[in-house]
Parts: sequence; structure tokens; C-alpha cells
Amino acid sequence: MSDAPLLLTDLYQLTMLQAYYDRGMTAPAVFEFFVRKLPQPRNFLLAAGLEQVLDFLGRARFTDAELDWLAASGRLHPRCIEALAGWRFTGDVDAMAEGTPFFPDEPILRITAPLPEAQLVETRVINLLQFQSMVAAKAARCALAAQGRLLVDFGLRRAHGAEAGLLSARASYLAGFGGSATVLAGMRWGIPLYGTMAHSYVQAHDSELDAFEHFARSHPGGTTLLIDTYDTEAAARHLLGLVQRLATEGIPVGAVRLDSGDLGEHARRVRAILDGGGLTQVRIFASGNLDEYEIARLMAEGAPIDGFGVGTRMNTSADKPYLDCAYKLQEYAGRPRRKRSEGKATWPGRKQVFRRYGADGVMLGDTLTVLGDEPLGEPLLQPVMRGGRRLAPSPALAEVRAHALRAIARLPPALRGLEPAAAYPVTVTDALHDLCRVADSAAG
Amino acid sequence: MSDAPLLLTDLYQLTMLQAYYDRGMTAPAVFEFFVRKLPQPRNFLLAAGLEQVLDFLGRARFTDAELDWLAASGRLHPRCIEALAGWRFTGDVDAMAEGTPFFPDEPILRITAPLPEAQLVETRVINLLQFQSMVAAKAARCALAAQGRLLVDFGLRRAHGAEAGLLSARASYLAGFGGSATVLAGMRWGIPLYGTMAHSYVQAHDSELDAFEHFARSHPGGTTLLIDTYDTEAAARHLLGLVQRLATEGIPVGAVRLDSGDLGEHARRVRAILDGGGLTQVRIFASGNLDEYEIARLMAEGAPIDGFGVGTRMNTSADKPYLDCAYKLQEYAGRPRRKRSEGKATWPGRKQVFRRYGADGVMLGDTLTVLGDEPLGEPLLQPVMRGGRRLAPSPALAEVRAHALRAIARLPPALRGLEPAAAYPVTVTDALHDLCRVADSAAG
Repeated sequence: MSDAPLLLTDLYQLTMLQAYYDRGMTAPAVFEFFVRKLPQPRNFLLAAGLEQVLDFLGRARFTDAELDWLAASGRLHPRCIEALAGWRFTGDVDAMAEGTPFFPDEPILRITAPLPEAQLVETRVINLLQFQSMVAAKAARCALAAQGRLLVDFGLRRAHGAEAGLLSARASYLAGFGGSATVLAGMRWGIPLYGTMAHSYVQAHDSELDAFEHFARSHPGGTTLLIDTYDTEAAARHLLGLVQRLATEGIPVGAVRLDSGDLGEHARRVRAILDGGGLTQVRIFASGNLDEYEIARLMAEGAPIDGFGVGTRMNTSADKPYLDCAYKLQEYAGRPRRKRSEGKATWPGRKQVFRRYGADGVMLGDTLTVLGDEPLGEPLLQPVMRGGRRLAPSPALAEVRAHALRAIARLPPALRGLEPAAAYPVTVTDALHDLCRVADSAAG
Repeated sequence: MSDAPLLLTDLYQLTMLQAYYDRGMTAPAVFEFFVRKLPQPRNFLLAAGLEQVLDFLGRARFTDAELDWLAASGRLHPRCIEALAGWRFTGDVDAMAEGTPFFPDEPILRITAPLPEAQLVETRVINLLQFQSMVAAKAARCALAAQGRLLVDFGLRRAHGAEAGLLSARASYLAGFGGSATVLAGMRWGIPLYGTMAHSYVQAHDSELDAFEHFARSHPGGTTLLIDTYDTEAAARHLLGLVQRLATEGIPVGAVRLDSGDLGEHARRVRAILDGGGLTQVRIFASGNLDEYEIARLMAEGAPIDGFGVGTRMNTSADKPYLDCAYKLQEYAGRPRRKRSEGKATWPGRKQVFRRYGADGVMLGDTLTVLGDEPLGEPLLQPVMRGGRRLAPSPALAEVRAHALRAIARLPPALRGLEPAAAYPVTVTDALHDLCRVADSAAG
């Protein structure tokens, strides 16, 4: 899953490596990953994916089968194949902690390594950081809209492939979801798992009520019944007697799920039916095409929904399914480097991001400056890998989540809303402007 | 990569299986995968992903580690864990060939298997079929817009994770792209590989021209030079002498790449510079935020671009990053089944899709009917797996691609345009309408 082959890369990484090796260009290079623009209407992004990047860097190497195939392809000469056989990542990584809000032009990861090492990892580093940071930002918006109601990731089936499904469970949990339906995410990271039943389960029975009873008896610890396969309110009425009867046997029914139609209207009607039958303790869970706007609408109308299953629109980040992001060379052999392409110019050199907070703990603004400049707040990029080795074991995902929730709570209130807010202030120092001129005068 | 663990599934699949086992509900079930609505402005979708589905079905089983974890979780009782240990897919699959255009309500895959087998595979089957079919449809639109110009998949880095990157290389090639930058896709399926160089390669050199010369000498078989790192036209002028000098040594420069600014305008200026310097044979390749509309615009203005690198917007299907699709129970224990949820009602029973063509070979219309009905054209669903075994070896991807290109060429001309066309006619037979009534009278 997250152990992708090193050959899952762009061809040009390999052809550039050959050129670097041929010219002995193996001096230290500094690359940084950043986002150029916030995808509207996001007011912030959330750093995520570092754990998978470090895992990848620690294990990346070419297999014999890959090297044989490369050699047979005739694209690279034998000296280059030999160099690739010994390729390891021996460099340094500095990064923002996962779960940290970030903004345009702020690097969330810096890699310092011999050029052929820092170059080759580009494709996968972008692939891992953009996806999880994008999903975490979208999931954080859902969590803000849900005001503490339970959110569960339901999106595996329509995620873009296996890894997207698995990693979006991680990214959404990290950003405030309460859990996921994806079993492997529970096994891998201890993410709380939630599940109900599918329409097919109900359909496979000749009677809907039999389906409910069989399921509850098969799971005497508690169940959620899906009640919209045929007629939602009729199903709610029919199950009153069943739930009471099961309760006398000590078999609880915890909740019902709605998955179609006007979820708010159905929830109100079903709540009234359940309450009328004395089942005030049975909760209502809703799913189906939900995103932060739909959740906010349901919350605003006071829909009696206790939890939401959020899938496709969250974990494909459906309104903005990619970030305008880059992993750019900022320094090579001790000299700052800068791209000046139209609309894509970058800030050169090794950079640090400082964050300032007010007395109330709310974020005031960030400063983007050259590394080594005097501290202007909390330094967000911290060493995480030196010489190809992690400096600390992976934090538990629950810790990462706690950090994210604390950090999101410190965002200026307008940025925590769903509507586009005025941009968060990120100041670029004179020292960094000066470095641009140095880089420009050197290149060309 | 495409060998995802079986535990990469929704929790409810496992809890439903326990309920099925408890009640001995292991009779044959029929599930079909279909799309409910075309995502606008798509005029057709393209079936893709069957190969990965068959591979998954053939190899799916729980590992000991997964079973141990499940047992320790306490969610399932020991008899269920035991049944899962022996779980294999022993069923039948009928499907449309990959590369076949399809339309709403038409099943592209039918699985017939004991209920716990057909149920458990749901999540991954949807995950595989929706992604590749979606990307193939988007890529086909790009190919139609490009009118035969070379298209290369550049999207790995911003794909949603590793598998999405790899499978979008496959889906886009299948749909008419000429190749991919993703090396593993070349190794795995023989997809032609293309690569140029990154801005970082140019930036790492003190002189852009040195960077070009080093690269060409390192790849004397031919190269593409990226010329927009600093000033596109200046780079084009500077490289004239270099290209001529290298040519005298037998080292060709095949193309230049543009990656920023107004691609059409830069292409015209660079073409004039190259032609003025006698380099009429050097081609121009363009990339950067391309999709079918941008390609169509560049083609319409006659931009002298010989090939396009298309990434993010194609392989995230950025304007519509998911399909409204489902894998639904249509029959259980010999009786047709149907979901009637609001806005999500389905056609019950085992179905076939017949396609009719005019004398000119162009598609006239499809008929959706019950399986076994009299032939009303070419039957699109064909047996591909029986008793858990494939009926034929995997076709080569080049064959699949050839089938797709022939099939796309037979679409009504309006459907091959980028603008929304009148819906392609799909007729539902009386026999299928009758079956709905049978299913409805049985359920409730």
C-alpha cells in the first residue's frame, strides 16, 4: 500500500540522474515542498503525509527486477544502472508537524541531500504530501461544520484507488473525523471503526424487519439499522416493536441510518416516530452526498442527526481535487536557486516559517524568511530526519490528531468559517527579498 | 500496488458476512456495477478496470495477520473468523470488454456468487471500476480534442496516491494517450514512456545552456529540452547554435518543452525562432494545466504544438472527480431484488446490454433487458470468469487500446464532441419493466 516501488516515478527523474552522475553533480541540494495558492474556498490547508514520506525515504531502493528491466530498456547506460543499484536516501528532512495549518508559499517540508537523492524522490514526495494535505483540509472543514457531531469516513469505494482510500481515512481522522469504515485503517493506525449495513443486506431478505432482527441477533453488542431501502418512515414505524422486544433480551439497537432523500426532513420524521415509540435513546446517523456545506445546512436547520457518514466529496476533495503545489530546488552547492517561469516564480534558499500568536492564543500571522534569521515566533519547520534516519519514532496518530485539533482551534475565527475569509497574513522578510536578487543575478 | 489487502474494505462488509453466515444465507447472489448518471459534460464513459478486478478476485483472501487482528478486535465471533479464513471467490463474472463506451443504467460488470462472496468484494470492485472508467472517459475526451497529436500522461505526482497514479497511466493509454511519464506503467504494461527534464535540472546548473548541453550529451539518443525556466524565447534563441553543433556530432535534440505562460503564443514564437535557425525538425511539446478544453483551444488557434503533456486535470478527472455509481444486489436465491430508495431505484435481475449499429458502423442505440431475452444487437456483457477462474488470459493492453479506439470511432459524432450532446438512446424493454413489478411485489 504505502510501500510503492521506487520505479513509481517520472521517467525524467531517471534521465536527469544519469546526467547528474555523468557530470559528477552530487553536491548538496535543497528542495522545498509548498503550495502556490489556496484552492478557493479553503481558508487554510493542513499539513499531512509526512509520516508516509519518511517511511518512503527510509525504505526507498531499486529492486533487482527493476534494475534488470531498466538495463534491458536501453534508456540508461550501465554506469547509471550501477549507481541506481546503490541509490539510498541519506539526506536530511525538516518539516512542519502533521496537523499544522499552513498557507501559500510556506514550505511544509525541506529535503537536503546530494542532488541525485533529493531529485529522485520528488514525484512520490509530492504524490504523498499533496493528497493527504488536501484531504485533511477538506475534512477539517467538514469537522468545523459539524460542530462536534460524529463524522465517519465512508469514502473508500469512490476514492481514487486503494492507497487514496486508505490514506484518506488517515487524513480525515487526523483532521477531526471520529473514525472510518475502512477496516485496514483501523488495523494499521488504530482509527476507530464504524459500520452499519448495506441496502443489499436488506434486499437479500424477503422481509425488511427480518433483516433487521437477524442483524441485531448476529451483533448483540449493538447495531445500526439502515432504514431507507424501501420507505424510510414505514421502516421506522415497523422497527419500534422489534427494538423493544430485542431490548428485553438485552440486545440493543443503537442507531438507524438514513441514506437518501431530504436527510433533514427524514430525520425529523424518524426522530418523532422513534420518540413516540419511547426509543429516545436510538440515535440517527445520516449519509449520502455529504460535504461541509450540506452538513452546515443540516446543522443550521436543526436536523436531529447525531452523526454523519461522509465519503466521496470529502476524500476526493471533490470541489478542488488537487493543490497547486510544487517541490522546488531552492539551493544547489551552497548557492540559492530560483525558478522565474511566468506565474510560477519561487522564493529561493532554505527557509523557515515563524508563527505568532496573540495573548488569547489565536494565530496573528506568519513570517517567511531565510533559515538562520532571528526568531520571529514559533519556528514551524523542525528537524525530523538526519542522514537518512528518523530523529524520533512516529508519533501515534491520536497525538497527531490532538495537535491538529489544538492548532485548528487557534486559527483566526474567520478562517474557521466555510466562506472565503481575508487571507491570513504571511510576511516575507527583507532578507528573503534580498536572496531573490542574489539568486537572479547568479542564474540565467 | 493493485494487490490491495482484502481488509481494505468497509467494516459493514464483515458484519454483514457474519449475519449471512449465521443465517446460512449463502445462496447465489447477483450484483451488477453501473453508473446512475453521466457526469456532465461527459457524453459517454469508457469501461476500464476489469483486468484489476479479475486479478483481485483471483487472489483475494485474508492473511493470518488480518484474521488474528480481526479475532482480537472482538467484533466478530469465532465461527465467523473461521469462515473468513476459508473465504475464496468462487463465482462468475460477466463484463463489458475494457475500452467499451457505456451509458447510465448499463451494467458493465455482473458478479454471480454465493452471497458472502459477492458481498465482500463490493468495496474494492467499485474502487477499481469507478476510478479507471472515470479517468478513461476524461482521457478519451482529451484524445478527441487533440485530433491525433501525441498525448502523454504527466499526472503521477498529483494523482491521489500511488495506485491512482499507476492506474491512471493505464486508463489514459487505453483511452488514446500515446504514453506516460510513469516508469512503473512502462515496466508493468509496456506503455510507451516519455520524459523530458525538470526545472530543477536547469536550475542546478549555473548556465541554462550548459544544462542543455550536458543533458544532450548524457542522452545522445535524443532529448527534449525544457526551455521556460527563465525566459522562454531567450532560451530558444540560445539553443540554436548548440543544437546545430550537437547535430554535427550526431547528437540530436528532438524537441523543446514549454510549461508556463500562454502556451499557444510561446509556441508560435519559439516555432519561428527554431525555423529561423533552420531547426524545422525540432518539435514543440507543451504542458501545464492542460485538459480537453485547453487542448481544443490550442488546436483551434492552430498553435504549432506537436504533443501535449496532460497531468492533474486528466488523472484526477478534476471537473468531475467521481462517478455516481453503484454495485447493487439484483437477484438473490433466484428472485429479483430491487432498491427503491428515493432517487436511487435500480433495475432488478440479471441484465444484458445489446448495441445496434447503422450500415456505416456508427452506434444507433442500446437496449437494456433481462438476460436471456432475444438478441437485439451485439451483446456487450460477456463471460470472463467462471467458478473463480478466468476464461481467457488477460488481453495485452495494446489490444484493449485498439478496441477502445475502434469503439470510440463508432460513437455518434455529437457524442465525440466536448459539448454536451443529446443523450444516447438506451431503451429499457417491457420484460425488464415487468421484472420491476415482480421485484416490488416480493419485497417490503
